[in-house]
Amino acid sequence: MAMKHAGVSAIRALCSSPSLTRRVHSTAGSKKIVGVFYKGNEYAELNPNFVGTVERGLGIRDWLESQGHHYVVTDDKEGPDCELEKHLSDLHVLITTPFHPAYVTAERIKKAKNLQLLLTAGIGSDHIDLKAAAEAGLTVAEVTGSNVVSVAEDELMRILILVRNFLPGYHQVINGDWNVAGIAHRAYDLEGKTVGTIGAGRIGRLLLQRLKPFNCNLLYHDRVKIDLELEVQTGAKFEEDLDAMLPKCDIIVLNTPLTEKTRGMLDKERISKMKKGVLIVNNARGALVNTQAVADACASGHIGGYSGDVWFPQPAPKDHPWRYMPNQAMTPHISGTTIDAQLRYAAGTKDMLDRYFKGEEFPLQNYIVKEGVLAPQYR
Amino acid sequence: MAMKHAGVSAIRALCSSPSLTRRVHSTAGSKKIVGVFYKGNEYAELNPNFVGTVERGLGIRDWLESQGHHYVVTDDKEGPDCELEKHLSDLHVLITTPFHPAYVTAERIKKAKNLQLLLTAGIGSDHIDLKAAAEAGLTVAEVTGSNVVSVAEDELMRILILVRNFLPGYHQVINGDWNVAGIAHRAYDLEGKTVGTIGAGRIGRLLLQRLKPFNCNLLYHDRVKIDLELEVQTGAKFEEDLDAMLPKCDIIVLNTPLTEKTRGMLDKERISKMKKGVLIVNNARGALVNTQAVADACASGHIGGYSGDVWFPQPAPKDHPWRYMPNQAMTPHISGTTIDAQLRYAAGTKDMLDRYFKGEEFPLQNYIVKEGVLAPQYR
Repeated sequence: MAMKHAGVSAIRALCSSPSLTRRVHSTAGSKKIVGVFYKGNEYAELNPNFVGTVERGLGIRDWLESQGHHYVVTDDKEGPDCELEKHLSDLHVLITTPFHPAYVTAERIKKAKNLQLLLTAGIGSDHIDLKAAAEAGLTVAEVTGSNVVSVAEDELMRILILVRNFLPGYHQVINGDWNVAGIAHRAYDLEGKTVGTIGAGRIGRLLLQRLKPFNCNLLYHDRVKIDLELEVQTGAKFEEDLDAMLPKCDIIVLNTPLTEKTRGMLDKERISKMKKGVLIVNNARGALVNTQAVADACASGHIGGYSGDVWFPQPAPKDHPWRYMPNQAMTPHISGTTIDAQLRYAAGTKDMLDRYFKGEEFPLQNYIVKEGVLAPQYR
Repeated sequence: MAMKHAGVSAIRALCSSPSLTRRVHSTAGSKKIVGVFYKGNEYAELNPNFVGTVERGLGIRDWLESQGHHYVVTDDKEGPDCELEKHLSDLHVLITTPFHPAYVTAERIKKAKNLQLLLTAGIGSDHIDLKAAAEAGLTVAEVTGSNVVSVAEDELMRILILVRNFLPGYHQVINGDWNVAGIAHRAYDLEGKTVGTIGAGRIGRLLLQRLKPFNCNLLYHDRVKIDLELEVQTGAKFEEDLDAMLPKCDIIVLNTPLTEKTRGMLDKERISKMKKGVLIVNNARGALVNTQAVADACASGHIGGYSGDVWFPQPAPKDHPWRYMPNQAMTPHISGTTIDAQLRYAAGTKDMLDRYFKGEEFPLQNYIVKEGVLAPQYR
């Protein structure tokens, strides 16, 4: 794929934007690969499969270096003097993750004159300016499917934590208290409740399957209907109009990618039309919702509980309002980086690098931008 | 049933223990009913369906009083001067719950000369000395099925909380931190793990059904095999020998009643034979496990996480070691007292009282002790 890519870029360079000409200069041989991961620190050595860290670098260093490539890993990704900035001028491949996102701006893409390939170890490329990446003729790809099960499981956990009012009980335990009423007055069964997912892609569909035995009323909104077989299997009903679905839901789960169309989609007005006490689970992206509108609705009680692992920006600053709002069950961005997921996205990243070195195509579903062309769902 | 019961007791009295003669003196008319529930306090009025409290008394006061019965409710259940003790001498029916258990000892049964019926608003009667109750010719019954869904859902929540290492992430959020590695190094997917349930009665079977879409390796131990249809549906494999099953499990869930045979069944020796890092969920009864052995194994890391809502005694004292052990995800006894469950066990209790007043049989599965005879599973 690398050589093909260089070829395509060369042709483009002849007939379109002059910025594309830089692609031609990359060689097919030794590559400089930079990976930006979270630090394992004292935890790095505690688990032999904990490969998603700076210390372990997806476990691909020996393999890369044995082929003559240069591999740099860092967690230092912010500001003009960070480690990432130092390598922008001569890297060919940049590996990032959603869990500790290196924001790949138009400015950074401009600086990275040799950059050909942006790989997400995980799923999601919204930390990358896709328009700028496409204009620069780059390829952007993720390890689609690598952590969809991980995220769907985590969503079901969060639904239950909110519906059953788990955290006030836990706080009583660690605070030496015992007050069943303080929990029970707003603890419910999931059974019989209406759960709506905004988005029924890979993760949303896995969630619907896992929700099926709970005997809920399942709804989903997406651009298109899911397979009839899955609809029959899960009993989920298609809701073409998002604004018609939301007021029906006791629980709303976000399962849609962050794009310019979906940014801030759950704003103050939409939240106000939801049921009083609605529970919201968001493991998709923090910027899908209006931060302050969510915090205000949790404070007023209109939102009865909000749980998720995605924030904007990440890491969340110490004064992020979601840390302090009532009835939150938040964590850092974790759902897609279980040990099982790390092993899968490390293997998927290695596979794409291997194909890149050999000039082969990636699995089609992995492409976000293929040699300058955005995948349909991102247009 | 009340009249039948009196009749049976009278016959027994003629030919066996003289203690049974007291039953004959109870009249078929006005009854004194005492209910021991947890207090709602400031939460009592927050939810119109919050009926399981002292303040709401299952919502049956008007109905009882309109029929000429006397209804006393209290949460004061401990010690010789408590409110419950004051009413023992003349009550006919005592309603208790597992969430705020009034311990019905042989001594209390002896004092309660008019007592005929012990009803559990919920499931489980291990807070009652069943042998003494049987010897006194009493009937003990629960609202079987009233909260099995509630408890099974809660168990799945706890499995996910432990497997995915939720709480350390939540603590980071409220403490102003962000350290993905501190969570991820021991966060896993549930998929592919081996989950074993000790007991596959009503709750265990509901749990197996809810676990099915998670693609785990499901095992169960019980006295008898579950229906073939359910075994095929869930893919769960029967393990006749508990000690053979335990070392295979990544996650162990307790779903067996507390009896003299099961008390302390998970002791130091059995725990030592489990996998290192095993996760244990116990919403059944605290006394099924050895308290200190669990705390020690959590401290050593042999148990990787322990979550449940049952303790011994309840309320758990401030110095109960489970409040302070690492990797616990405990709550007060709550899983069976969701609002949905309260509505069901209030209705089930009312139904049994109605049948008692009319001299009718209860639903067969509700009996723990029927007029002095223990149900088979409690023998």
